[in-house]
Amino acid sequence: MRIKNQAELERWLAQGKATPILPTELRSTAKTKPVDPSLQRRIFGLDTALRCTGWGMIDVRGNQLKAVDCGVIKNSPKAPFSDCLRCLSISVRELIELYRPNIAVIEGGFYCRNVKTAMVLGSARGAVIAALAEAGIPIHEYAPRRVKQAVCGFGNASKQQVALLVAQFLAIQVDKMPLDSSDALALALCHAQNLTVAQGHGISPEI
Amino acid sequence: MRIKNQAELERWLAQGKATPILPTELRSTAKTKPVDPSLQRRIFGLDTALRCTGWGMIDVRGNQLKAVDCGVIKNSPKAPFSDCLRCLSISVRELIELYRPNIAVIEGGFYCRNVKTAMVLGSARGAVIAALAEAGIPIHEYAPRRVKQAVCGFGNASKQQVALLVAQFLAIQVDKMPLDSSDALALALCHAQNLTVAQGHGISPEI
Repeated sequence: MRIKNQAELERWLAQGKATPILPTELRSTAKTKPVDPSLQRRIFGLDTALRCTGWGMIDVRGNQLKAVDCGVIKNSPKAPFSDCLRCLSISVRELIELYRPNIAVIEGGFYCRNVKTAMVLGSARGAVIAALAEAGIPIHEYAPRRVKQAVCGFGNASKQQVALLVAQFLAIQVDKMPLDSSDALALALCHAQNLTVAQGHGISPEI
Repeated sequence: MRIKNQAELERWLAQGKATPILPTELRSTAKTKPVDPSLQRRIFGLDTALRCTGWGMIDVRGNQLKAVDCGVIKNSPKAPFSDCLRCLSISVRELIELYRPNIAVIEGGFYCRNVKTAMVLGSARGAVIAALAEAGIPIHEYAPRRVKQAVCGFGNASKQQVALLVAQFLAIQVDKMPLDSSDALALALCHAQNLTVAQGHGISPEI
């Protein structure tokens, strides 16, 4: 089943059921080898920004998905730029040390109109990617539209809709999940779906 | 003496003399306290890019400037994006460990037409700034135009002209200095001039 619009999503949510959706178009773009579904993997999703970076950790074994933890790395609006990057880098390293993830997933391929914003966002991504790469963790990148399509079934879903479906998939209460971490969990879920349901097809290449 | 154009610069270079130029307009924009000129400081200049980051280290005591070392952090054009950032971050940390600089200076406030380029350049800057900030080194940022004005006397100087003047200031042979590191040394020189000749006036605030 594929959800095509908001009305369908609402009907689907009303049924209270959530099973991973396999984006059919991913099959045709598959370039990677099928992945052994019996392996347990811990996926570290990161929705990177300078002031507020959401993160989520999920375990995947076969078709089973389990939320491990999620949260937000916050920087004060008054904190100097270099302090924010330092804090981001240290926090990511601490999370790696604590949860030992096998794979990291970040947002990529999004559109940014302003060059200055792109530079700031790029800096936050740079600090995070460097910390992940130094720990030897393979990093995958998915466009926001593709993540929404994987989690909600259509690419125009709102932040709230993504949060609702992420909570249903992972059987966690939506009000107990920081809103900024739902996008990070959605990134991890998107990769998990490609690993499990799509058996490794459609996984974005490592960056 | 202020050099206003290329012809003047060439005459000046022909004389074989190089003394620090004090950009007079900086005096009026001075916001920081005067700096004790007797202190010795090691300035770490970085001209950041993903594939080729130039760096230069200079020592400053009073009006005396001395080149310590310079070089380039190179990444293969085929190296994955995350590998480049990992290499940048590790190399910067190694240089800090080796030379123990007190101050870092990077390029900033430049114009970048393309959003994608801004994002990539931002990532390289993010990895470098995070490494510097983690080592507790204060970071200053100067626009390319201001650096050229401080080193060459006018803001439109070419890369070769900057390299020539940097070599003259620091009494090093221009052919022994990697071209990509001359901009990094120029950044360090620009900050050194504001520290010494301008006695701390005109120093850009820490980022």
